[in-house]
Amino acid sequence: MRITIDKVKFINSINIVNKATSKKPNLNTSGCILIDATKGYIRLLANNEDMAIQSIVEGEISEEGMVGVNADQLKNLIVKYPDGKINIFYNEREDDDSINVLIENNNIKATIPGKEGYLFNDIPEIDRNKRLEISQYALKDIIRRTIFCTSLNSINKILEGELFIIKNGILRVEAVEQSRVAIRQIEINNNEIDERLIIKGSSLNELIKIMSDDTEQNIDMYFMKDNVVFEFDQNIIVMRLIEGNFFDSSNLKYKDYITKVDINKRSIYECLDRSTLFANDGDKKSVKFVITNDNLNINVISQTGALNENIEIAKEGDDIEINFNPKLFIDALKAIDDETVTIYLLGKKFPCFIRKEDTYNYVILPILG
Amino acid sequence: MRITIDKVKFINSINIVNKATSKKPNLNTSGCILIDATKGYIRLLANNEDMAIQSIVEGEISEEGMVGVNADQLKNLIVKYPDGKINIFYNEREDDDSINVLIENNNIKATIPGKEGYLFNDIPEIDRNKRLEISQYALKDIIRRTIFCTSLNSINKILEGELFIIKNGILRVEAVEQSRVAIRQIEINNNEIDERLIIKGSSLNELIKIMSDDTEQNIDMYFMKDNVVFEFDQNIIVMRLIEGNFFDSSNLKYKDYITKVDINKRSIYECLDRSTLFANDGDKKSVKFVITNDNLNINVISQTGALNENIEIAKEGDDIEINFNPKLFIDALKAIDDETVTIYLLGKKFPCFIRKEDTYNYVILPILG
Repeated sequence: MRITIDKVKFINSINIVNKATSKKPNLNTSGCILIDATKGYIRLLANNEDMAIQSIVEGEISEEGMVGVNADQLKNLIVKYPDGKINIFYNEREDDDSINVLIENNNIKATIPGKEGYLFNDIPEIDRNKRLEISQYALKDIIRRTIFCTSLNSINKILEGELFIIKNGILRVEAVEQSRVAIRQIEINNNEIDERLIIKGSSLNELIKIMSDDTEQNIDMYFMKDNVVFEFDQNIIVMRLIEGNFFDSSNLKYKDYITKVDINKRSIYECLDRSTLFANDGDKKSVKFVITNDNLNINVISQTGALNENIEIAKEGDDIEINFNPKLFIDALKAIDDETVTIYLLGKKFPCFIRKEDTYNYVILPILG
Repeated sequence: MRITIDKVKFINSINIVNKATSKKPNLNTSGCILIDATKGYIRLLANNEDMAIQSIVEGEISEEGMVGVNADQLKNLIVKYPDGKINIFYNEREDDDSINVLIENNNIKATIPGKEGYLFNDIPEIDRNKRLEISQYALKDIIRRTIFCTSLNSINKILEGELFIIKNGILRVEAVEQSRVAIRQIEINNNEIDERLIIKGSSLNELIKIMSDDTEQNIDMYFMKDNVVFEFDQNIIVMRLIEGNFFDSSNLKYKDYITKVDINKRSIYECLDRSTLFANDGDKKSVKFVITNDNLNINVISQTGALNENIEIAKEGDDIEINFNPKLFIDALKAIDDETVTIYLLGKKFPCFIRKEDTYNYVILPILG
């Protein structure tokens, strides 16, 4: 293999596929990126147990071939190269079967160890039958505003995923944790697709780091039996689906509320943010909401001090006292842009809903005091 | 005590005195800031074993008094207050002698524990006889460009300090480590002061975080028997001097050099930066310089790969091969702004000088390979 790539474009593609390098030391290719120049173009490829990423990078091929290199080592080295063209080729040493990858420009000659290309798993063949084209910004936004409710490590793998429901021109995304639920939906320009799939939160988290914030740019989603594929620019991301039954959010009925509160989002957010200084671990992380007439009193007393605040509200229904973990409330408020939010309370021991019809529904369980 | 302070001004003063709060848990006032409103103005005060800082903050006193509070707790809370006026007062609880400090604005009432003001050591009385007025920028700059050569924890306390020599209108600062020396000097507008003092590097490091980068603003230094005092704006910083004999830099004689090299600073800096990827701990952290005619070849071979680069130079004197820890070279080059640097080599086993007459002198010992 002998190729020439522009440094800046190379770094860009390395950063993209690096999102799928595995940190698990169980494979010979763990933490590695494959550089492949056998198909008439140059592509980088990495995969872990949950996802695979391929990124095509512009460049010249003067000799075909492929070789794997440690992703971190490659990235750390290329970043420190001067801008411009970089030549990459490799020598197989006769004596011990090891591969030396040479990375050069004018005055700089660096050598790092390589791995045989055949050790790497390729991405599966993509079935482009069922295709949803969606704005990168919209997809990124709906993931970003729900993903904090996925668990990083759960005995129940389902809770590590987000449920995507695509039906009747609506994309709905749901995430569930022990004490909370996040649901968001948007309209899409596609009435054909009818899919229900669970995608791992950690993979989606890497995806949104790669995607653009540009509202003009789109991404293609393809739906296969075991995988969902995202394709945009010169990149293909394949994610393995999680199998199983997701939590049924249709059981979340807010209409029996006894108290409805309209409140300035910033006021309650800033108050709860201050309250976290006092609601420490040792104190069960709970703050008390006392709702009476047009006033929400939030207070917390702990070993490190006390906080007591009043916020003006518009209330319908009963007075109520209820305890929450302020962190859960803060996360939900962070995911909402509205100036005023509406909170539905069903009782001291029942879920609380922060919701807006056809847009979002954040559900938080109270702490029983 | 009952005082009213503007939030933004309060935070600013907390951040300043916080640089002198002690993290050592041996004192009842460790990690605490004293809020003192007994002298007709409001001042914050903190000190540790090496330095003390007082900062005067504008505000209204409606009742005199003083109280100590945990610095981190105070800072974390005030940062989360809305902008505007904050009232601070305290209640002594009759039942258990504890103090509650109340921090309020309109709707927010926070309470944190306080400590008796008499527990705090005050700053010593300042003798303003010997005074040097110097630009904050110049002082900050000379410290910043030498301080990386002070040791953080040394059996020899002298090595934790920087030597300040003020004489004949020159301020000279020297720092020494096991394998390197940093010396910088500047002209000052004062021929009267004749002082030689050693100041702890960690204290100077906190000082430069507080000082302005504005070239128009000055700082006053006062020289006392056991202390040096810095005064600017509404702040007083008192540092305890280190006693002892500093390394004698007059023994550093570069004039017997056998090789003199002029080199583009950026070229050698970037090359050495790349070399650190290969000169890892396990390989004694050394790179080889091979100087021949108009070429400097820098190369390193390690378990993780190899790097070989050539840089154009202007050379006088002998060809030479010499090994360096690239980190030490990089630190010195970082402290120099010149486009071209001049390196003096005395031999494979002797110190190397990167120097500019009357301005700087960075000395690095080679690694004996």
